[in-house]
Amino acid sequence: MLTFEQLSAGVQERDGGAYRAARLRHDTLTKPVGSLGRLEELAAVLAGISGICPPPVPQRPALAVFAADHGVHAAGVTPWPQSVTAQMVASICSGGAAASVLAGSVGAELLVVDVGVASELDVHPRLLERRIRAGSRDLSREPALEVAELEAALDVGAEVAQLLVDLDGADLLVTGEMGIANSTPAAAVIAALTGTDPVSVTGRGTGIDDDTLRLKTRIVAGAVAGLPPGSGPREVLAAVGGLELAALTGFVVAGAALGVPVVVDGVISQAALLAAAGLVPAVTDRVIVGHRSTEPGSEAVLDALGLEPVLDLGMRLGEGTGALLAVPVVRAAAALLGEMSTFGEARVDQIEP
Amino acid sequence: MLTFEQLSAGVQERDGGAYRAARLRHDTLTKPVGSLGRLEELAAVLAGISGICPPPVPQRPALAVFAADHGVHAAGVTPWPQSVTAQMVASICSGGAAASVLAGSVGAELLVVDVGVASELDVHPRLLERRIRAGSRDLSREPALEVAELEAALDVGAEVAQLLVDLDGADLLVTGEMGIANSTPAAAVIAALTGTDPVSVTGRGTGIDDDTLRLKTRIVAGAVAGLPPGSGPREVLAAVGGLELAALTGFVVAGAALGVPVVVDGVISQAALLAAAGLVPAVTDRVIVGHRSTEPGSEAVLDALGLEPVLDLGMRLGEGTGALLAVPVVRAAAALLGEMSTFGEARVDQIEP
Repeated sequence: MLTFEQLSAGVQERDGGAYRAARLRHDTLTKPVGSLGRLEELAAVLAGISGICPPPVPQRPALAVFAADHGVHAAGVTPWPQSVTAQMVASICSGGAAASVLAGSVGAELLVVDVGVASELDVHPRLLERRIRAGSRDLSREPALEVAELEAALDVGAEVAQLLVDLDGADLLVTGEMGIANSTPAAAVIAALTGTDPVSVTGRGTGIDDDTLRLKTRIVAGAVAGLPPGSGPREVLAAVGGLELAALTGFVVAGAALGVPVVVDGVISQAALLAAAGLVPAVTDRVIVGHRSTEPGSEAVLDALGLEPVLDLGMRLGEGTGALLAVPVVRAAAALLGEMSTFGEARVDQIEP
Repeated sequence: MLTFEQLSAGVQERDGGAYRAARLRHDTLTKPVGSLGRLEELAAVLAGISGICPPPVPQRPALAVFAADHGVHAAGVTPWPQSVTAQMVASICSGGAAASVLAGSVGAELLVVDVGVASELDVHPRLLERRIRAGSRDLSREPALEVAELEAALDVGAEVAQLLVDLDGADLLVTGEMGIANSTPAAAVIAALTGTDPVSVTGRGTGIDDDTLRLKTRIVAGAVAGLPPGSGPREVLAAVGGLELAALTGFVVAGAALGVPVVVDGVISQAALLAAAGLVPAVTDRVIVGHRSTEPGSEAVLDALGLEPVLDLGMRLGEGTGALLAVPVVRAAAALLGEMSTFGEARVDQIEP
């Protein structure tokens, strides 16, 4: 098993030749030039990631849900009790959560990874036990993680990507998470790494009221203000992040290194993507953002990285749900480029574009 | 087999009780209230259509592609030769067209219906021969269809819906079409039935140049101006429509009457939906618009009917492609409402919403 550090060094630039070949091939297929819209770019991105044109159609997507608790919960940033993290982990494993239903609906494997839940969890075949500590520290009072904890979480993410791709044969990875209060560290990471005003990236998460939003925003702003100037992704993740955010960062980088497309979910996953892209810039071209979350931080990440999401369905649930819904579109984009006839093959009269 | 007229009389209002039960049920499921965004409304619409909460998950979607030619082609509204309609029908049947690939990708049956192609077509098991005439008349010079032709086309649409649902067991219908030049009659139908300025609903279709767009807009405006005041959907379809537009209108109304969800494709299908909703207003609540086309007429229809599309992928290909991509989302919406656990079932702590 390679470490996060080893995999980071192996992320290559997307294959520009395969990307360009895909764009050119699309113009030979039996349809008006450009009429498949975003699917044409998506197919080219898949070609660039795989290095093959047309790219393979993903057959074995796999969702990893990284779960952890957050010390900042004690500061009152959400009305949901911390116990819900563990309860939802059990529900995701047993099939009743939104992510479980959607994974079944789109044909994705599902693995839940405990990287830092604060309460006891029952053993389950879909649960991988990699707890680093029972929740991060309260980022409103002290750094959320020590450096060694951060490194361990990055390595868990890298390990999970390798388990899914190298052992289980997954050919597309989907990011997911569960962690009560985790939109607070996500907002802090996004504000710190994009330089955006904390007010504009702190949202209502599960749907908090005005008073709680004011408190949450103050905590995010305070945490970001306390960062030493010039803090990089590692320093930011340790000081104001969390265990599932760090594991997701490792997972995204590892997926990119392993050469499979990584479909990124909503604002929590996108905060991790931002950190991943900060550590290994070539990652940006090797991911597909599944959807635009209604959480304001989502827009800030997409703007900062210049990425366009596949779907925009007004969702803000997390767990991997938005990214799972994008999987059939990703699969369709690859199938179209590989399986459509050219004008010549189909003997359809062509006009000059 | 029931006629269009008989089926029209049988379209019932969506079941308000099942719709409301679905909205209420969503608030009991293990997620923050409203966090599944548009999928919550979509599930409620499916419940309202089926009259059951939770609604059945569609298992057998079927796409019907209605193909026809258009006399207005002779006026020079597109650079594509008319022969392409028949060539693309052959390609859709044999599996190389975008609609064929996407039907396979999302698991939909596919039937092509010749309702008015101008050239000879080879027999194919996926091709249903129901040609009413070899293309409509040139709407820039005379009415496109006689009343008897219009009625015959409405009946073909109704027949195809019954074949797919009653004989083949389809539980979700998808609209598609193929017909070189058909964005001209579609723009005329939309302008006439919404009262919108023809300039703002006439688009570039397959990607025509500025001169052709000016000519096309002039033809659309002239055709609409020539309609008798107070023309209804039937008069408009006959004067400035086309055979596949009329068949699609019959198909949408019949699908609504048969109680299955109808997923409507891009601007051509949406023009037919507008006519269908004009004839049978209860249809509007029984359809799901699959995607927003980049053709300007799409926006005008959505505004007029107050409908929100599922996807927005910058597509403008037709054939049913945008609607097919929405099928996995529709299926997922039904699965979520039916298969997710409630807070009580999953023993997850709930807060007051």
